[in-house]
Amino acid sequence: MRLVIALGGNALLRRGEPLTAANQARNVDLAARSLAPIIKAGHQVVLTHGNGPQVGLLALQGEAYSESAGFPLDVLGAQTEGMIGYLLERALTATCGSEREFATLLTQTEVSSTDPAFLHPTKPIGPTYTEIEARAMATARGWTITRDGRDWRRVVPSPEPVRILEIAIIRRLVDLGVTVICAGGGGIPVMTREDGSLVGVEAVIDKDLASALLAHALGSDGLLLLTDVEGVFDEWGTPDAALIPSSTPAAMAERQLAAGSMGPKVAAACRFVDRQGRFAVIGALGQAQAMLDGTAGTRITLDDDHAFGAIA
Amino acid sequence: MRLVIALGGNALLRRGEPLTAANQARNVDLAARSLAPIIKAGHQVVLTHGNGPQVGLLALQGEAYSESAGFPLDVLGAQTEGMIGYLLERALTATCGSEREFATLLTQTEVSSTDPAFLHPTKPIGPTYTEIEARAMATARGWTITRDGRDWRRVVPSPEPVRILEIAIIRRLVDLGVTVICAGGGGIPVMTREDGSLVGVEAVIDKDLASALLAHALGSDGLLLLTDVEGVFDEWGTPDAALIPSSTPAAMAERQLAAGSMGPKVAAACRFVDRQGRFAVIGALGQAQAMLDGTAGTRITLDDDHAFGAIA
Repeated sequence: MRLVIALGGNALLRRGEPLTAANQARNVDLAARSLAPIIKAGHQVVLTHGNGPQVGLLALQGEAYSESAGFPLDVLGAQTEGMIGYLLERALTATCGSEREFATLLTQTEVSSTDPAFLHPTKPIGPTYTEIEARAMATARGWTITRDGRDWRRVVPSPEPVRILEIAIIRRLVDLGVTVICAGGGGIPVMTREDGSLVGVEAVIDKDLASALLAHALGSDGLLLLTDVEGVFDEWGTPDAALIPSSTPAAMAERQLAAGSMGPKVAAACRFVDRQGRFAVIGALGQAQAMLDGTAGTRITLDDDHAFGAIA
Repeated sequence: MRLVIALGGNALLRRGEPLTAANQARNVDLAARSLAPIIKAGHQVVLTHGNGPQVGLLALQGEAYSESAGFPLDVLGAQTEGMIGYLLERALTATCGSEREFATLLTQTEVSSTDPAFLHPTKPIGPTYTEIEARAMATARGWTITRDGRDWRRVVPSPEPVRILEIAIIRRLVDLGVTVICAGGGGIPVMTREDGSLVGVEAVIDKDLASALLAHALGSDGLLLLTDVEGVFDEWGTPDAALIPSSTPAAMAERQLAAGSMGPKVAAACRFVDRQGRFAVIGALGQAQAMLDGTAGTRITLDDDHAFGAIA
């Protein structure tokens, strides 16, 4: 099968952990071990990843160094594609041995200059703060801040991904049997100027929506969105919380799901299933193989009766 | 022709210029315009680039942010591959239009753990300092510093590149007609542990030596090393300074060339010519096309009498 697999931020950093090279490397090693059986089984895997904590940290580092101006978010996003791609490729090569070839491809994602997201920042980046810290940072730096679970974080615009510029190269590499790491952080956000040239954008694209776009453009059989919870829950946060084992885009649209980080994942999964007619699964990184087998996670297909037909 | 073209640090930053996103983007646009005629002519171009100023700046930014530890040089090198690769790919796409496909590939370069360079740091990174500033930084941070022209800079180990890990992917992309940007900063330095796995190394590889290795591994017809001077000069820095239009590895070995940044370039050019039997040219970024035509730069071939035979 051709599969696009999106690694959530927890693949590189658990909540509350300091963002050090050692912590990232250890978590990436765990992620590589979860993915190795799928890659070794010969599936055509395209791997994407988030970059929220990383891009925020690099922005803070740039601001802390007083001798020069910091870089804009497109340039910082490119830096995180290099850093995270390197750690992933190194760990996957170590885990999968010489059985598979890996390539990490720099990826630009086009967005629309008229996207309403530029007026309403929603994407959390960087570390978490207390409310008092967050309000102080917002005043000092002109940030937009928002509550993220029990904590507060900086938020930046997250426009819709419209086109992945390197899609033809990614397709060729996949056709050659290469496991491709790409569209990190949703891809570097760029937009087209009136003269047709591209310019970087101060934004961070949602990596699940970019992964859905990528999966559709590649004609993928499935989309796996890996995070740090077991799937989508009804009544999340209550004693009646229950994992939804399978559903359809139509049924998901009618459910009252709690807001939070699961919203974009459900939207991305449903979008892929609606467009492509194949399956998407949302679940925990450590259960990636079981999600593919149909025994873990929340599986979304066009027709709930045939939720597991796509595997056969 | 199949050509490996190495962009010196000046492709992104002129001496003394602050390392801002805007300065980098402007210089990269100029570099793209110099390279466009060669790429548009249909040559199979593989583009590499330095990262000395960038990797040093990212190290300083990381140290300036007190909330977390900075990243080691292999991780910072990966970040610069993302950042510079993005700027180059964006500028080349704008300049060459849709006539060519571009791919920026993350590249790891293996070095030997017993390389003597680890005991003798020689590679300048980061900004320039006065002698007083440099000595203060060396004391405060445990840096090794050295004189670089009229200024002082931090130096780090620069071990020999032994193997480019992604070479098979690079070759495939080149065979498909893709213009590949890779081996940025000489590649991310990694070494093999006793258990066979790879680990990152605190070093910065010389991008000209890595480019020579890459050119040999790809069976290139030529290697162009682009910098901010017109070529290699006899009696450099004296009134008798004279450009050497062509030479051989044997003749270059006998010349008394002034030390400095030209040393590694001459060594890299001679190594490629000795191994591959084809031509290398050292010269100014703005004269890339003329260097290929044989009318600019210092051309090194096995046999000086046939220095221009390789072009036909």
